[in-house]
Amino acid sequence: MSNPPISRYPVPSLDSLPDDIRQRILAVQEKAKFIPNVFLTLAHRPAEFRAFFAYHDAIMEREESTLTPAEKEMIIVATSAANGCQYCVVAHGALLRVFAKEPLLADQIAVNYLHAPISPRQKAMLSFSLKLSRTPELIQDSDYATLKEHGYDDEDILDITGITAFFGLSNRMAIVTNMQANTEFYTMAREPRG
Amino acid sequence: MSNPPISRYPVPSLDSLPDDIRQRILAVQEKAKFIPNVFLTLAHRPAEFRAFFAYHDAIMEREESTLTPAEKEMIIVATSAANGCQYCVVAHGALLRVFAKEPLLADQIAVNYLHAPISPRQKAMLSFSLKLSRTPELIQDSDYATLKEHGYDDEDILDITGITAFFGLSNRMAIVTNMQANTEFYTMAREPRG
Amino acid sequence: MSNPPISRYPVPSLDSLPDDIRQRILAVQEKAKFIPNVFLTLAHRPAEFRAFFAYHDAIMEREESTLTPAEKEMIIVATSAANGCQYCVVAHGALLRVFAKEPLLADQIAVNYLHAPISPRQKAMLSFSLKLSRTPELIQDSDYATLKEHGYDDEDILDITGITAFFGLSNRMAIVTNMQANTEFYTMAREPRG
Amino acid sequence: MSNPPISRYPVPSLDSLPDDIRQRILAVQEKAKFIPNVFLTLAHRPAEFRAFFAYHDAIMEREESTLTPAEKEMIIVATSAANGCQYCVVAHGALLRVFAKEPLLADQIAVNYLHAPISPRQKAMLSFSLKLSRTPELIQDSDYATLKEHGYDDEDILDITGITAFFGLSNRMAIVTNMQANTEFYTMAREPRG
Amino acid sequence: MSNPPISRYPVPSLDSLPDDIRQRILAVQEKAKFIPNVFLTLAHRPAEFRAFFAYHDAIMEREESTLTPAEKEMIIVATSAANGCQYCVVAHGALLRVFAKEPLLADQIAVNYLHAPISPRQKAMLSFSLKLSRTPELIQDSDYATLKEHGYDDEDILDITGITAFFGLSNRMAIVTNMQANTEFYTMAREPRG
Amino acid sequence: MSNPPISRYPVPSLDSLPDDIRQRILAVQEKAKFIPNVFLTLAHRPAEFRAFFAYHDAIMEREESTLTPAEKEMIIVATSAANGCQYCVVAHGALLRVFAKEPLLADQIAVNYLHAPISPRQKAMLSFSLKLSRTPELIQDSDYATLKEHGYDDEDILDITGITAFFGLSNRMAIVTNMQANTEFYTMAREPRG
Repeated sequence: MSNPPISRYPVPSLDSLPDDIRQRILAVQEKAKFIPNVFLTLAHRPAEFRAFFAYHDAIMEREESTLTPAEKEMIIVATSAANGCQYCVVAHGALLRVFAKEPLLADQIAVNYLHAPISPRQKAMLSFSLKLSRTPELIQDSDYATLKEHGYDDEDILDITGITAFFGLSNRMAIVTNMQANTEFYTMAREPRG
Repeated sequence: MSNPPISRYPVPSLDSLPDDIRQRILAVQEKAKFIPNVFLTLAHRPAEFRAFFAYHDAIMEREESTLTPAEKEMIIVATSAANGCQYCVVAHGALLRVFAKEPLLADQIAVNYLHAPISPRQKAMLSFSLKLSRTPELIQDSDYATLKEHGYDDEDILDITGITAFFGLSNRMAIVTNMQANTEFYTMAREPRG
Repeated sequence: MSNPPISRYPVPSLDSLPDDIRQRILAVQEKAKFIPNVFLTLAHRPAEFRAFFAYHDAIMEREESTLTPAEKEMIIVATSAANGCQYCVVAHGALLRVFAKEPLLADQIAVNYLHAPISPRQKAMLSFSLKLSRTPELIQDSDYATLKEHGYDDEDILDITGITAFFGLSNRMAIVTNMQANTEFYTMAREPRG
Repeated sequence: MSNPPISRYPVPSLDSLPDDIRQRILAVQEKAKFIPNVFLTLAHRPAEFRAFFAYHDAIMEREESTLTPAEKEMIIVATSAANGCQYCVVAHGALLRVFAKEPLLADQIAVNYLHAPISPRQKAMLSFSLKLSRTPELIQDSDYATLKEHGYDDEDILDITGITAFFGLSNRMAIVTNMQANTEFYTMAREPRG
Repeated sequence: MSNPPISRYPVPSLDSLPDDIRQRILAVQEKAKFIPNVFLTLAHRPAEFRAFFAYHDAIMEREESTLTPAEKEMIIVATSAANGCQYCVVAHGALLRVFAKEPLLADQIAVNYLHAPISPRQKAMLSFSLKLSRTPELIQDSDYATLKEHGYDDEDILDITGITAFFGLSNRMAIVTNMQANTEFYTMAREPRG
Repeated sequence: MSNPPISRYPVPSLDSLPDDIRQRILAVQEKAKFIPNVFLTLAHRPAEFRAFFAYHDAIMEREESTLTPAEKEMIIVATSAANGCQYCVVAHGALLRVFAKEPLLADQIAVNYLHAPISPRQKAMLSFSLKLSRTPELIQDSDYATLKEHGYDDEDILDITGITAFFGLSNRMAIVTNMQANTEFYTMAREPRG
């Protein structure tokens, strides 16, 4: 069967969009050489589009964060896989390969982070993220203690929490809109760096 | 034991805050006669504060939404109870009592919406919200079909999704910060309207 | 929508009841100033009514028990919330507020005992109660060891077990009869003691 | 390893017991030719013993009940297996063999009622019992509708509920006391009737 | 109701079977005095029959294995009970009674191994088997460490894994074919050895 | 971190292997241009190796099967993802891309088959496979009826069952041996056919 449209909802044309949204999308397109479907899909509702990307940037680009770009993507891939979100696993899997320069890592984490070649500290981070994502009602003080034993401080924990929480939101939006990952993401950065 | 501080994280003083954040907080205080702790707690990180409330307003104040204010609060109370979030159940339980003018309804929905005196249509809405909140990986086309049988259209479904997804984020932030619900929320609107 | 009748089953009139049952109900009414619906609802089957309250009294009024009245109610509120029982959460939430003299505690425990301001010993008690209530098949020797580290002895464990088990029964009766909590319980003891 | 004592708790001698309890036990012994361990185990706390058996009799011996003795035991075996209660599965498995005169049926239902040779109506009864036992929070009106399609009326549903709820209590008492099923129960009624 | 046929699928007659399969079945019959239904049921597909029993023998008859025959059957009974497989629980329960010479042990492990009179080492083995059988995605290095603390080495772990994995396959084949345990298994070895 | 060795267990050299096993491996290598790690890993135990591949061939190469090669791989990918098996998801994902000639399909099914572009009939097949794989105890007659509505007959159901069951075994062996997918599988057939 052929792939479905990129969203169950109407996708606006670029020139029908408010200037700020169009500018953001064009900037992404220039950098990536294609427009990730999350931009086109969410543009269906401009106010939510603006809030979504403002939140994204606040979480993902916090200057003081000690998490590496690859570690942030690990959280996104692991929790999005648990939530069954195609767009997020495929698109952020691509980013994880780009940042980690490890062409196998995204698939390994998407299937089962317990068998991925990451450090015990990173496994502790993902274990917390998955617990917070899937069973937030079970989070308790001992969970923070475990993270601190691995060298994470309270601000790190808040970074992990923000990413987990924001992409939990993103997963649910992508699932209900049936957002399709761009073909480009599937193959991006799969070859070892020369 | 005495109640814990309102957050596990530092809570900034009002006068140390950026102007826009302080103004938003003072406006809320003037209307509510107290400052809900979510404002003080999240002000710890101004960029995330701004994004959080921008998203909140985009979701909760969308003009075209056909969901009533009480129905939006029902979603928040039911999903926050499932996620074990004290702040959200107590604060939005108060708002549900205010909007629905039903002093028992918030507790009834927090414990078990299946036994609450709401319409079959509202039960279908909460059933979808809880499935999306707790097991997003299981959402499928038949879920939308069920909502449509109850008269919800695709834009309504996107409203329900946005509220469910955003407060899922909010639940996780409140849980990790150990955000405490203000005392005022516990008793607000518990008496029948005269 | 208006609230449903107090039971899905016929509710007998007081004067149609056997003497012993009517006397018990009148005694409760004199003390509480209203008749909790559990009495009227269960009176539909007198033999079960008598056994239910005999069991209740044996469990809750055992003289040698070292559990405080508030602690007993904590168990009931926490396990009844997990079981989704409106009547038990609301009615015993009221009793918890009365006994603990803490107007916020019942809601805090109903939503998530892990975030309630109770002692580590009380959290251990509730952790055991919830495990026994929700997954009795997983109870093992190490669970008793944990309780004993917190100072509970075998008779305390039997008290915790009896309350958990009896109110698990009570939850299921209340759920199937769709027993409604009296309006009085919702607001009882919500104001701080003067 | 040898089998453990019949209870983790002290087991009183018959002659140390209150008269009414000793009489009940002797009557059972005369009929069964042995004393089922539940009697000796629960006699550790006389008030709870009396309430337990009063409740048992009210539930199991209600004259108007349309459930057959074998059907009552099916409920007990199926729910006790789900709850992991050795005493209840083994002892009531024996009673199920006795009442149903089907020497295989108890094991078949204990392992998986969906594969047992019982009627669709009995499967509907057990499906409801297991849902009520394991996830009472999910019970809803459609569950009663399903039972009614199979010919159960509201009083039948209350009988099924009472048995499920009471033996849920019993399971938890047996698990925590580590109550051991008498050897006699394991082999009782395993041969086809001549 | 009478018991169903031994399989939902056609059961070939002995004389219609390929020689090697008929010989294997006749050899079993001579030893056991009856033909266990798994042989007749799986003979419906000869190639799978041959592979199934080759695998069975490779796993169960590995000469170097340090697991006792009774311990192998414990794994089969515990995991088959969790998977709801009547044939495997009943047939291998019989074999467990035969090998352990403990007439109660099979029922005790089928209902709840945590309450069975087995050694802590055997409980660790069953705990691992059940985790691997029911939630293989959660297996991690610490699980092997726990087994090694109990004296199991890597080859033992592979034996436990092979048995768990093979009987997981067997459970699913028996469930879908609705394979019925032979009557003989229900009563085999239930009497203490003289 | 670098990738771990291909197995937690010793990997025999080709020339130390029994002839039949070495021949099978060399034949695979000639066809695939590399040796899939499952062959080297399982060769650690020759008897189990032989039984494993005999079973594999009996299931996957049954001549009468109406399932297409791509459909068989869909079952393997979907159930292996649920079981958290890296080797099986990656290796059979590659085969799914090869057989289906759809370079995106394997990732789509691994993340969430409900959002993959497959037919309703194929979704019904995967829904059954996942239920059988994850909760075999819940399989009931209505599941076969649903498959038959989609045009599957009893032999098709047995094919689906065999593949699900065998790869459930395979998943558990791969998880405990920590079997690593060959690098070749990650990129195989990711480009659209020209």
